[in-house]
Amino acid sequence: MKEKILCAKWILTSVEVEPLKDRCLVVQGDKIVELGSKQELLSKYPQAEVFFFENGLIFPGLVNAHTHAPMSILRGIAEDLPLMTWLNKVIFPLEAKLQREWVYWGTKLSLIEMIKSGITLFCDMYLFEPEVIKATEESGLKALVGEGLFDFPSPGYGPLEKGLELTEELLRNFENHAKIKIAVSPHTLYTCSAETIKKCLKLAEKFGAKIHLHLSENKEEVREIKKKYGKTPPYVLKDLGALSENLIAVHCVRLNKREIELLSRYKVKIVHCPESNLKLGSGIAPVPEMLKKGLMVGLGTDGPASNNDLDLFSEMRTACLVQKGIEENPSILTAKEVFKMATEIGAHSLGFKDTGKLLPGYKADLAVLDLNHVNLYPDYNPLALLVYSAKSGCVSDVMIDGEFIMRNYKILTMDEEQIKEKIQNIKKEILKILQKTFYISEKKNKLFS
Amino acid sequence: MKEKILCAKWILTSVEVEPLKDRCLVVQGDKIVELGSKQELLSKYPQAEVFFFENGLIFPGLVNAHTHAPMSILRGIAEDLPLMTWLNKVIFPLEAKLQREWVYWGTKLSLIEMIKSGITLFCDMYLFEPEVIKATEESGLKALVGEGLFDFPSPGYGPLEKGLELTEELLRNFENHAKIKIAVSPHTLYTCSAETIKKCLKLAEKFGAKIHLHLSENKEEVREIKKKYGKTPPYVLKDLGALSENLIAVHCVRLNKREIELLSRYKVKIVHCPESNLKLGSGIAPVPEMLKKGLMVGLGTDGPASNNDLDLFSEMRTACLVQKGIEENPSILTAKEVFKMATEIGAHSLGFKDTGKLLPGYKADLAVLDLNHVNLYPDYNPLALLVYSAKSGCVSDVMIDGEFIMRNYKILTMDEEQIKEKIQNIKKEILKILQKTFYISEKKNKLFS
Repeated sequence: MKEKILCAKWILTSVEVEPLKDRCLVVQGDKIVELGSKQELLSKYPQAEVFFFENGLIFPGLVNAHTHAPMSILRGIAEDLPLMTWLNKVIFPLEAKLQREWVYWGTKLSLIEMIKSGITLFCDMYLFEPEVIKATEESGLKALVGEGLFDFPSPGYGPLEKGLELTEELLRNFENHAKIKIAVSPHTLYTCSAETIKKCLKLAEKFGAKIHLHLSENKEEVREIKKKYGKTPPYVLKDLGALSENLIAVHCVRLNKREIELLSRYKVKIVHCPESNLKLGSGIAPVPEMLKKGLMVGLGTDGPASNNDLDLFSEMRTACLVQKGIEENPSILTAKEVFKMATEIGAHSLGFKDTGKLLPGYKADLAVLDLNHVNLYPDYNPLALLVYSAKSGCVSDVMIDGEFIMRNYKILTMDEEQIKEKIQNIKKEILKILQKTFYISEKKNKLFS
Repeated sequence: MKEKILCAKWILTSVEVEPLKDRCLVVQGDKIVELGSKQELLSKYPQAEVFFFENGLIFPGLVNAHTHAPMSILRGIAEDLPLMTWLNKVIFPLEAKLQREWVYWGTKLSLIEMIKSGITLFCDMYLFEPEVIKATEESGLKALVGEGLFDFPSPGYGPLEKGLELTEELLRNFENHAKIKIAVSPHTLYTCSAETIKKCLKLAEKFGAKIHLHLSENKEEVREIKKKYGKTPPYVLKDLGALSENLIAVHCVRLNKREIELLSRYKVKIVHCPESNLKLGSGIAPVPEMLKKGLMVGLGTDGPASNNDLDLFSEMRTACLVQKGIEENPSILTAKEVFKMATEIGAHSLGFKDTGKLLPGYKADLAVLDLNHVNLYPDYNPLALLVYSAKSGCVSDVMIDGEFIMRNYKILTMDEEQIKEKIQNIKKEILKILQKTFYISEKKNKLFS
């Protein structure tokens, strides 16, 4: 198989070492096999196809460890509302009318946005998840996905039992798949009974699968669970036997020190979604404390309806800035730590263990930051450019498993124009629904202002 | 004079009214004269030059109400450090060696970045400010600028008296200038004695000029001033007679309710720089309380060495998100409020009173958001797209005083490639200085990690 050699002004192989200057990496099949100087590698691999990024920075593909990709179709539809109002008055009523096809096209739109943000792997929970899988397979991205499971009937699959059956079928079909893994995804403790969680655990155990759920996102949730169970969400999960290294717990905004220690003891994986947590007024997760206690904390954008983007550069930056600000300590969460969260830790948490660094033996999952953008001048510190200055529009190329899926800003695996057209049609259908429902006819400006 | 007609899918004339759909605006000379339908305006102005933005959103140019534009040459040079360490160990020693030419080229780089972020007006305080003015005049942007004044000798002008002379000369030369206004800019209370502030006030009064200074940025500053004067910075300014509607007070992170009321009583203009305040660990300014008390609060990026960009979209978003998060209230600061801060309020605070809205009689200072970017689909809510989803790379066109300075992503007034080349050369010179100074030779990784 013909090798690919990628040469760049900078290569950030991992945060543990200084970025390499004027070096190349060799890709054989889906893997990185070697790093070195141009001269040395070009003479060692004379047949290789060579790609030059003269003013580029090659970095490990970012990992969006939590999102609801199809929700891009609802971006901007309701702003400046509290989580429970947003969910109950806008999102849930709209999702009750959700069309299978919308999920497919919404995911496609989000996949393009993620590629342009240098994301090569993501974790998704939503409805009609087979559509998410179909779109993702077409795109070339890697993902851990799971159908969102609730006690109440789902617009996606109907009654819970059908959701569990669907999940089991997916687990079977995607066992040992190179790019797609399946998670069992009970939505949260306030939408899933103890009984439902237990069924999910049993199914996950059968396949050695990850469990992916929202946990302790805001104080209303904690209050409700405490009222129902007499204890806080992490302790409810403990009693149910749900705490394990296979559990991916998203948000974890309202955790106290004891709860952090508890989750750490069970090696639970945390996903931090700072922008969504801020925007919905949920609060700010105690990330420095989590890291101090040895918890693995990945980074996610959450759905684009509550963020409102899928830009992990922005998420890294916000994660750092907010902690520095509230702790009044600019060293409390560094560029290095947050970049690690957004790459290796995320990848490991989602069960993709051979990605997240650009070293021999790792998968060739990478992106190229185009340093020709004025906001990326000058280049004293490549890592700081990635975390504090880069934006999704600054990524020129993305490679997954050794294949380019974006080359010189052009998405190679999807038809961007077709997707945009479909989205505008879906928008019209959604607007028709909105016009028929109470919350838009009653108080028009509430939604749109 | 031949009119220009700009037609777009959306025009946001001001946040007070819903965005217009499929409408046009007519520009005559430097002003907007009319808004209306395409048909109507094309027949009324048959000679006009017509510009179509079929999938574009025209919005009032953003106002970056506080920055140190030349500092882009130091972007990323020192990260994750406290303000005082950052200033005393890195920034001030480097600035002591600052070259006049660096200021010119650093400003040019920043001007391009600001144009690409839809900024049409900014406020600057730095050293060698005549270079900033020269670069700004070439770019076509509008600005309120002032040489930073300190007790200690400045690398820019030498002893304070020379700085005051320079400021007076600029005030005289730019009286009644269409695009450039001059502020008297004492750096802050901890770098300027009471005597210095008084001299500044006298000079400002003579010309009816704005005073632009940093105020109550962090607790160290407040502590130091309290120790020296026995009162907090706003009260020191009050005693000096500095509080007035011509005072632009930047940061105001550490204000209590009484101080907010005091500044409100005197109609002091506030500039909020959330990202810099977070990044340097200074804290979070009480913006909702300020707005409640009727203070005019503009929005600024601060210098690109502590931000690390000049993207006012990102600044609007952060301003909103952070307040929602810390107050645990998603309605506490809305997209509408923050967009107003970033346009009309900023413009008014800087003394540019006929810009910030797209209405007849206002200057044609505007930008076009290109809605073809995937992160801007779908377009339910143009204002939400501007505040929560847009990035600097998404602006295609910028017009100031009726003239395009960026057209279809191309800067028309400056040579971008030449500027980038100059910046890389300046970087090499700065690296040489760094290698000779203690803080880099002693502990290399402290600076670059």
